[in-house]
Amino acid sequence: MASNNPTPPDSARRSERSRRAIYDAAISLVVEIGYPKTTIEGIAARAGVGKQTIYRWWGSKAEVLLEAFLDLSEQAARAVPREHEDREDREEREDGEDRAGRAGDESQGIPDTGDLAADLRIVLRATVDELRDPKFEAPSRALAAEGVVNEELGRRFVAKLLEPQLQLYVDRLRSAQEAGQVRPDIDPRIALELFVSPLAQRWLQYTGPITYEYTDALVDYALNGLTPR
Amino acid sequence: MASNNPTPPDSARRSERSRRAIYDAAISLVVEIGYPKTTIEGIAARAGVGKQTIYRWWGSKAEVLLEAFLDLSEQAARAVPREHEDREDREEREDGEDRAGRAGDESQGIPDTGDLAADLRIVLRATVDELRDPKFEAPSRALAAEGVVNEELGRRFVAKLLEPQLQLYVDRLRSAQEAGQVRPDIDPRIALELFVSPLAQRWLQYTGPITYEYTDALVDYALNGLTPR
Repeated sequence: MASNNPTPPDSARRSERSRRAIYDAAISLVVEIGYPKTTIEGIAARAGVGKQTIYRWWGSKAEVLLEAFLDLSEQAARAVPREHEDREDREEREDGEDRAGRAGDESQGIPDTGDLAADLRIVLRATVDELRDPKFEAPSRALAAEGVVNEELGRRFVAKLLEPQLQLYVDRLRSAQEAGQVRPDIDPRIALELFVSPLAQRWLQYTGPITYEYTDALVDYALNGLTPR
Repeated sequence: MASNNPTPPDSARRSERSRRAIYDAAISLVVEIGYPKTTIEGIAARAGVGKQTIYRWWGSKAEVLLEAFLDLSEQAARAVPREHEDREDREEREDGEDRAGRAGDESQGIPDTGDLAADLRIVLRATVDELRDPKFEAPSRALAAEGVVNEELGRRFVAKLLEPQLQLYVDRLRSAQEAGQVRPDIDPRIALELFVSPLAQRWLQYTGPITYEYTDALVDYALNGLTPR
């Protein structure tokens, strides 16, 4: 019956299936053979779609990969912070604390409970989980490595994927500034790097272990400073 | 006459010439064609030496490149901090300040004038100069990118090149801890990442401009903390 009735929902479902197959093919190819050898032809062959299907939706290999990766990050973001939120919500109910500040918190947002240190610890612990997730690890390494030597891809990777995530920290630090919890003279876009970049460098360059204890220390050092108070 | 008298100095000079030619060939190849396509054969051909000369001195392509890169970093370190030291020495003579703390300061060491913030600002500004030096930029990007996807190379890169540099910050922070200028409870190996990693990430991932103003801000934020005192 369905085959007699190619309604828009069916077509949309087929498109969605193709899109997912293309994302999966793109990610698995870049993991297996690297970014330079991955081609639109190769992605089409593995996804079982025509080359033209890909060209109809995306302008280049970089575009496909950036979107495939964005999709993967969104899946990871949906999976990880939810657990933390659930845990938080439980704690909230237990201590009866007012969490109005969390109202604007979307799945990828940074919680705003009024306790900046606690909020940053939660988000950085979720990032530790994501960085250690094997599904996420290999493709993000392949794209990050290519971005290091391929400046154009690197800049697009940052503009489309990394910077929007960093802006969530900017927002959270601004709200803390308004609440008088962060020095008014600091630039939030630089300040966030004190806890985000160390984690990124340990992950990218294997300069040290990635643990909750480590990210908790980063939050403490960055907020309170290295010099005695 | 010289050809009749192959004395050790001549042979040492020839070895040194070959070594330099091999380093230059390795660095230029990795810049031009990337790490994966660079081979011992290619390095030998470009350096004008036999393959066996390379195998006699190094066990693998990674070894040659790591040493070539170490040599390049040492050249850069000799060139850059000297300028700053000269400037410092002039200032020292002008204000007649005692600089006994600098006694142990080798060309790659971190100055210890007793003023931690000033010392860190100087070294990070020198790092900004190095990261912006085109001679250093391309090969370090090529090796860093390969290190991101090739864990073994990444870990050797860190152990041989990066970690020894980071240990200089550990030493400087320990001395500041002993002088009561850094909280006794902080781990210097983590603390240094608050100003080193942001600069590394901006350089590796193009997440922002690299300037003296930026590194000065990092030193201020890290030492004094983001929260009001």
